Amino acid sequence: MIHSDGFRALDRQECLRLLGKAPVGRVVYTRQALPAVLPVNFSLDADGSVVLCTSAGSDLVRAVDGVVVAFEADDFHAGRRSGWSVVVTGRAAVVTDPVEHERLMRTGPRSWMPLRDGVFVRIESEMVTGRELTGVGAGP
Amino acid sequence: MIHSDGFRALDRQECLRLLGKAPVGRVVYTRQALPAVLPVNFSLDADGSVVLCTSAGSDLVRAVDGVVVAFEADDFHAGRRSGWSVVVTGRAAVVTDPVEHERLMRTGPRSWMPLRDGVFVRIESEMVTGRELTGVGAGP
Repeated sequence: MIHSDGFRALDRQECLRLLGKAPVGRVVYTRQALPAVLPVNFSLDADGSVVLCTSAGSDLVRAVDGVVVAFEADDFHAGRRSGWSVVVTGRAAVVTDPVEHERLMRTGPRSWMPLRDGVFVRIESEMVTGRELTGVGAGP
Repeated sequence: MIHSDGFRALDRQECLRLLGKAPVGRVVYTRQALPAVLPVNFSLDADGSVVLCTSAGSDLVRAVDGVVVAFEADDFHAGRRSGWSVVVTGRAAVVTDPVEHERLMRTGPRSWMPLRDGVFVRIESEMVTGRELTGVGAGP
């Protein structure tokens, strides 16, 4: 569906396909009662959940383990005023199951920063929304 | 300062310089008690505040007018595992002063989408933090 205001809503499958191509996304959460956001690399698991790798002792883990967060990725072309964005909203949790942790050690994301105490955090894709900006608004 | 974990904290001036080059950022806020995020184009005003243009009747305006939000921009190079991110945290408010609105009509950001009822939203740069990922974590 193309909206008159220049964007098209993306369905879940389109959103997950685009997410799968994005190298970086942003975890959106609340820290000390303030909105917070942290860019991270990630991987998309087979069930559509977002998996990231961070330090067990990080502020991020303390803030998001067990709570609902948003995760955003996008890709825009400023010159053409076009692009897409996807937001996954769902519960985040540290992966504690040893078998699952082991699997993710082989197949999951690697942190871009060296970690002594890496853990995986999974964000369930309970709600997936996205939109494509079709460039209709381009003008002088 | 270069941290052993591969990133360097950026000072306020470095953050604002990088923000000024970014075509797109992301407003981070709370909508119906859930974390929410919306990518937008923006401009940086002379006082370091972030200005964006959106519809007066939008969900975004209803959610952010008068409350503290975060605004994030970044630029990462996946291959080199390097890049930067900046977060501005501060109060957001619709610009209601007619003189200020008129000035922003001439010099402020244009929405990428056609708007019948455009308003400017200013996010004060009360807290500005940023970091540069220096690629130390790059590996196989």
